[in-house]
Amino acid sequence: MNYLKKKIEEEASVLPGNILLVDRFLNQGLDIQLLQWLGQDIAKRFSGKNIDLVLTIEASGIAIAVATASALGVNAAFAKKHESINLSGELWTSRAYSYTKQREYQVALAKKILNSGMRVLIVDDFLARGMAMGALIELVQQADAEVAGIAVAIEKHFQDGGEKLREAGFDLYSAVRVKSLKDGTVDLL
Amino acid sequence: MNYLKKKIEEEASVLPGNILLVDRFLNQGLDIQLLQWLGQDIAKRFSGKNIDLVLTIEASGIAIAVATASALGVNAAFAKKHESINLSGELWTSRAYSYTKQREYQVALAKKILNSGMRVLIVDDFLARGMAMGALIELVQQADAEVAGIAVAIEKHFQDGGEKLREAGFDLYSAVRVKSLKDGTVDLL
Repeated sequence: MNYLKKKIEEEASVLPGNILLVDRFLNQGLDIQLLQWLGQDIAKRFSGKNIDLVLTIEASGIAIAVATASALGVNAAFAKKHESINLSGELWTSRAYSYTKQREYQVALAKKILNSGMRVLIVDDFLARGMAMGALIELVQQADAEVAGIAVAIEKHFQDGGEKLREAGFDLYSAVRVKSLKDGTVDLL
Repeated sequence: MNYLKKKIEEEASVLPGNILLVDRFLNQGLDIQLLQWLGQDIAKRFSGKNIDLVLTIEASGIAIAVATASALGVNAAFAKKHESINLSGELWTSRAYSYTKQREYQVALAKKILNSGMRVLIVDDFLARGMAMGALIELVQQADAEVAGIAVAIEKHFQDGGEKLREAGFDLYSAVRVKSLKDGTVDLL
């Protein structure tokens, strides 16, 4: 059973602007059984890939990264969305554009966390146009580490982020793919 | 063994302004074994308290909330730091001041996640002056729910947040208490 599919069908709602609201169980509210299922589901998919680190971006990717890293038995890390005085020393940085918030932001990760040669699994809650994902991939490449895989909870399949990543040769896994959110109805693939 | 104490002694550093940098293992970098230890440590302390929900604030509290909620077998939730268009419907809101970022911010949680009568365990990574904690407590009280306990990974004991919470009658647990960060040296209680 796809637990995430079930939760979306039963508890998600659609807002104007193609927003799928999953705040009851994945973003704000965190259903722990769902997270554990999702972490194990992603871990199973990438178990043969010798992952060293699970990387995500704050804030809503963190819960999924912790669940996935726990299931894989490796450490996790989250990139921050703008430079903070709590980040000392040198940083890997890139930029991304948020369509939700309609502004560009900086993505930063302390260099000491992500080292050359590491095999990184990037995870996030949503994949739409792939802006945040692109910024995370750039961080990994800056560090001369390897993107061993990409996993998202929910891919908005009607937007082009997933297609672009697959075309670029990345090993992308989406636990749930949304075909359409037209007329306020969730249509899953 | 106090795993967090060990990690702080071995891997933390001190920045000007009484900042204890734990980005290798608790904030940016997430040491999964440490998180699992911390979640179990907090869960053990509050196991008799019939907790319904573990509540935190984005971003660095989320990993600890997931680990604690997993250990307790309950769900978690995180408040957001300013209103976002992804938060539909009605919100519980309060305000807090960040000394780190030197600005006030709004704290918001969807009402549907936090209901009247719930017994809530509030968790966070740091407790210093208690500004974020005060905002979370206010959300719980607005919802007519109960703060059944408060747990933080690291209490800056030389600041007054912990003392104020204890004096106000809250059941506060800190996995590690920092006595001083003077001269760049970590002095733990």
